[in-house]
Amino acid sequence: MIHRPPAEPGMREEDIDTPALVLDLDAFEANLDTMAGFLAPTGAKLRAHAKTHKSPVVALQQMRRGAIGQCVQKVAEAEALAWGGVPDILVSNEVVSPAKLARLVALSGIARVALCADDAAGVALAEQAAEAAGTRLNMLVEIDAGAGRCGVSPGPEAVALAQRIAASPHLTFGGLQAYHGSAQHQRKPEQRAATIAGAVEQTRRTVEQLRQQGLSCGIVGGAGTGTFRHEAASGVFTEIQAGSYAFMDADYAANEDAPPFRHALFVLAQVMSVSRPGLAVLDAGHKAVPTDSGFPRVWQRPGLRYAGASDEHGTLRIEGGTAPKLGEKLRLVPGHCDPTVDRYDWYVGVRGGRVECLWPVAARGGMQ
Amino acid sequence: MIHRPPAEPGMREEDIDTPALVLDLDAFEANLDTMAGFLAPTGAKLRAHAKTHKSPVVALQQMRRGAIGQCVQKVAEAEALAWGGVPDILVSNEVVSPAKLARLVALSGIARVALCADDAAGVALAEQAAEAAGTRLNMLVEIDAGAGRCGVSPGPEAVALAQRIAASPHLTFGGLQAYHGSAQHQRKPEQRAATIAGAVEQTRRTVEQLRQQGLSCGIVGGAGTGTFRHEAASGVFTEIQAGSYAFMDADYAANEDAPPFRHALFVLAQVMSVSRPGLAVLDAGHKAVPTDSGFPRVWQRPGLRYAGASDEHGTLRIEGGTAPKLGEKLRLVPGHCDPTVDRYDWYVGVRGGRVECLWPVAARGGMQ
Repeated sequence: MIHRPPAEPGMREEDIDTPALVLDLDAFEANLDTMAGFLAPTGAKLRAHAKTHKSPVVALQQMRRGAIGQCVQKVAEAEALAWGGVPDILVSNEVVSPAKLARLVALSGIARVALCADDAAGVALAEQAAEAAGTRLNMLVEIDAGAGRCGVSPGPEAVALAQRIAASPHLTFGGLQAYHGSAQHQRKPEQRAATIAGAVEQTRRTVEQLRQQGLSCGIVGGAGTGTFRHEAASGVFTEIQAGSYAFMDADYAANEDAPPFRHALFVLAQVMSVSRPGLAVLDAGHKAVPTDSGFPRVWQRPGLRYAGASDEHGTLRIEGGTAPKLGEKLRLVPGHCDPTVDRYDWYVGVRGGRVECLWPVAARGGMQ
Repeated sequence: MIHRPPAEPGMREEDIDTPALVLDLDAFEANLDTMAGFLAPTGAKLRAHAKTHKSPVVALQQMRRGAIGQCVQKVAEAEALAWGGVPDILVSNEVVSPAKLARLVALSGIARVALCADDAAGVALAEQAAEAAGTRLNMLVEIDAGAGRCGVSPGPEAVALAQRIAASPHLTFGGLQAYHGSAQHQRKPEQRAATIAGAVEQTRRTVEQLRQQGLSCGIVGGAGTGTFRHEAASGVFTEIQAGSYAFMDADYAANEDAPPFRHALFVLAQVMSVSRPGLAVLDAGHKAVPTDSGFPRVWQRPGLRYAGASDEHGTLRIEGGTAPKLGEKLRLVPGHCDPTVDRYDWYVGVRGGRVECLWPVAARGGMQ
């Protein structure tokens, strides 16, 4: 079921039904401008990550402010973007299911699409899908930039896989994918700088070895909201794949020296019980605001601490300030914006205290 | 967007697209029978909790095997059940939004609905909504049975609130809601027994004090999959609100002396990368299998341990047994079935290795 929107345009924020995903449009637009300002003096372009926002509306706003395309992790996300008018999409991930590969190559008539590989078998599957569809697919080699998850080793292993792609009749070697996920939330700026310096050096060496074999990298992509300033300044990375910068969340805000992005994304929740002294219970538990990266923070209400999440209840401890009243609505800053967005069918865009727009979260639940 | 089903009826399990929510129909039906067998010798009836399954199809199967109705936590869940033909629904939770209360009383023409309160203001709001709709609403008092979340104190405070309900022209006092959530996962059976003994005693005392004031409890409801044997045997509780029993998850299975329910619910995931020795990466991270109650377990593959979840990736450590192959599909037992179900649009019902049915998760994302 797709649920009814929790608001109507023109409505006051306090009349929005809860829990709701609220986007502060002024803060969101300021974040897009801030990122454009960061990247302008570098050679790197923004290919924003749609795993965060799941919406062609957001994607097209990012592209109006300079993003050259979008990243996705899943074929279902690529479909939602391409069908919504996004012209350039990189699946920054491996896909090894023939059914999914057939869906992906079917998009190549309406959008420029690319995919990653870290295994010769994945290259062969993509070749078969592109051949069956009578098209060509752009394929990047993912290297393990140090996070130890997907990706071949930098250097000769990456070169061998790139050569295999280049030798496939229906594939084009598109470059390198080199994202370091675990660096994004290293709290100390010097830790992040050192980690990314290592990743940049491995990537630079691999690009050079590919060049020596006559293979040029159209894309060298990676980076997230925590580290993009390093990759953008490296002279090696051509594309920055940040996503959370548009919304900002509590986990990124906890990084020391976090970039000056504003909190634009909130879960609006209602106080549904005040029966115990020192406590208030919200109608938003971990189904409404996932806690994989910690509890949400209560926005602009010092003394209120979100201290416990069950499925449908969030427990607030009242440690100071004004006690919340039964029925009152509070904004929460999610711990992690990506899974939070993915819980909702609608963004409720708010400006000046009023609802301005309702944007569908088109790729909500798009995991396949 | 509602996503395409990840399978077609008749398909083999290994051809289901991933990640998918797979229901082993034999195990599911056995669980319903097992619960019916547990409750038959007691006086307690099953009012199964639909926060777990979110589906009128599942609800009606439970009711064909003896359940007298359903519990929900949210009005959107009540709508999905009532519109799907479920005739008797208790919102085992407080609702203090006038818009939601109007939706709830609008259901009273097609289903018997009831709601909980733990505050006089909540009683007044429900009275207004029922009066405006020209109907009556059945209202229970929630007591805090020891978990310290919602609910008034047992005893005189509960009696006073019940009297206020009984004095409201459009409300009927329906009984007590006394669920002890935090007891469900106490690992030791003697801990659970002691905790519930305390909750039963408080509830018994409150029922007696209400009786002395001429107020009888049509419903005394509570209990979950971890503790229901105690409440059912108490002679005090008339209705058992277990939900997870139908599916079973890794967290309940970790209780010592867990009831003999079978694992019926799985996330089917595919191995998408094997580029690092000793590791395999699945296409199911915490968006596909929430980790609020721990990581999932790999089903019937000893030596494989799900050891890390990011948004779209699950990391398996290969500690023995057969290493999984690229493209292989594995069943995961979710840590927590409730939020896992809520991530999917479809149940894929499997029997004998073949897809038998596709049931919509009708109240998926129904948080309002």
